[in-house]
Amino acid sequence: MRLRMDVAYDGAGFSGWAAQPDRRTVQGELQTAVATVLRVPEVAVFCAGRTDAGVHARGQVCHLDVADDCRPDEVLRRLAGVLPEDLRVRAVGIAPADFDARFSALWRRYAYRVCDDPGAADPLRRHEVLGWPRPLDVAAMNESTTPLLGLHDFAGYCRRRDGATTIRRLIELEWHRDEAGLAVCRVVADAFCHQLVRSLVGAMLAVGGGQRPTGWPGDVLAAGSRRPGVQVVAAHGLTLEEVGYPADDQLAARAEQVRALRVLA
Amino acid sequence: MRLRMDVAYDGAGFSGWAAQPDRRTVQGELQTAVATVLRVPEVAVFCAGRTDAGVHARGQVCHLDVADDCRPDEVLRRLAGVLPEDLRVRAVGIAPADFDARFSALWRRYAYRVCDDPGAADPLRRHEVLGWPRPLDVAAMNESTTPLLGLHDFAGYCRRRDGATTIRRLIELEWHRDEAGLAVCRVVADAFCHQLVRSLVGAMLAVGGGQRPTGWPGDVLAAGSRRPGVQVVAAHGLTLEEVGYPADDQLAARAEQVRALRVLA
Repeated sequence: MRLRMDVAYDGAGFSGWAAQPDRRTVQGELQTAVATVLRVPEVAVFCAGRTDAGVHARGQVCHLDVADDCRPDEVLRRLAGVLPEDLRVRAVGIAPADFDARFSALWRRYAYRVCDDPGAADPLRRHEVLGWPRPLDVAAMNESTTPLLGLHDFAGYCRRRDGATTIRRLIELEWHRDEAGLAVCRVVADAFCHQLVRSLVGAMLAVGGGQRPTGWPGDVLAAGSRRPGVQVVAAHGLTLEEVGYPADDQLAARAEQVRALRVLA
Repeated sequence: MRLRMDVAYDGAGFSGWAAQPDRRTVQGELQTAVATVLRVPEVAVFCAGRTDAGVHARGQVCHLDVADDCRPDEVLRRLAGVLPEDLRVRAVGIAPADFDARFSALWRRYAYRVCDDPGAADPLRRHEVLGWPRPLDVAAMNESTTPLLGLHDFAGYCRRRDGATTIRRLIELEWHRDEAGLAVCRVVADAFCHQLVRSLVGAMLAVGGGQRPTGWPGDVLAAGSRRPGVQVVAAHGLTLEEVGYPADDQLAARAEQVRALRVLA
C-alpha cells in the first residue's frame, strides 16, 4: 500500500532534502521518524521537490510504501509526537494507484519573499524573507519575465549537472505585493533544475532595483550559459508552496511520460 | 521635539521590554541603537505596551525626545543598519503635540495564536504559535467570553503588584480561525495587567478542549483571586499587534485622564 504524506519544514536546520551520512536532512529525519512510528527497521520516503539546504516547504509531497494494515490517521497522530518542531507532517492518506510523488507531478509552485520596505519588516518572518536594502519596482520585474515563460533551455540560470537536461517549462513567473507589503515572486514550472528559482529571482531583483534593464533576464536566457552577473539569492527566502498532480486515472501516464522525457536533476 | 516610532520584534531573544542591567531587553537594545544613530550618549525610549519576556510585537508604539533638527526619515534609514535582525523599526515620524506612547493610548490589541490541527502546522511560524495537542471548539470558547467583557477587576487573572489596580476594560475578546487554520484570539483592552492575556487564554483553552464548562472563565473572574486551575499559557504565542490613539487634539486630555485614574502595572 502506498501512502501520500504532505510535509512542511523550516529549511534552516537541514542540509537540504536528500539523506546524507552525518548530515541532518529532511529525508533522513522523515525516514527515521516514519520507521519509528511504523516499527520497521527502515523505510524509503520519496518527495516531489528535492529542496536545497536552507529552502523551506509548506506543500512538499512525499510517498512511501507500507504494509496493507497501516492506518494513515494513526501514522499522522504518532508522527506529530516523534518529529522535531521544524518538520511537520500535515496529512497522511492512502495514495491513488500509480501515484509517485516525483514522477506523477504536473507542476511545482514556489514563492520567493523579499522585504524592501522598513514598514513591512516583520522580525517574526525574517527566517523566510530576504531583506533588501533598496525599493523594488515590481512592475519592472514583471515586465522582464515575458521572454522566460514557456519551454526553454534554462542553462543560463542553472548549475549544470552531467547527464541532466536543463530544459524546463516555466508556467508562471509573477511578482506581487502581499497584504503585509512584501514583494513575493510566485513561480510555477513543470520541474526546476538546481538553483533555477534563486537565479531567476537574482536577475529580476537587479531589474527591480534599476541596475539592469528589463530585457536583461531574457538576454541571460538567450545566452544559454551561466552569466557571472546573475546573483543566486539566499536560500532562506524560498519556499516550496504546492505540488500539482493530474486526476487519479492519469497518474500512471504522467509518470511514464516524465520518466521517458527527462532525467530530472 | 518628540518622535513616534513603530516597532516590531521577535520576543524570543529578549528578557521582555524593560531595560535591565546585564539582560538583553527590547528597551535596552532600542535605546542603544537610537543613541548611536543620534550620536548622543543616551536616550530614553518609552513604549505603549511593556511586553513580558518572550512576547512578540508587530505594532508596538514608542516615543522619545530628540533635538529639533533631527530628521525622522534619516533616523529610520540608519536604524535599519544598526538594529539586530530580531528588532525592527517600521516607521519614525514627528509625534503630535502632547503625544505619549503609553499614557495617550486608548487601547492595545493582542493576538494569541494556537495550532490544534496537524493540517495547519507551519514550522516557519512555530516561534509565534502555541502547539496544542487536542482540537479546540472555537464556538465554545467564544461563548465563555461574555461575562469577561467590559469593566472588571481582573484580579482572578493577573499577577498582583503592590500599588497597582487590576481593574481593566476588556473591549474585545474573540476567537476565530485564520486563513491558515490556526485558532486566533483577538483581545483588545484599554490596558493589560501582568499575564492577563495569557491567563485568559489558558482558561479559554480549558473550555475549548472540553475540560471546563463554558461558564468557568466567568466564575474565575467572579471569584476575584488567582485560581490554581488557570494555566498561564506560553509567552511565544502572544503578539502585540496594534495600539490605538485618539485624535491629535485629544491626546493631552487622554493622558491626563489615564494618569489620574490608574497606576498602570
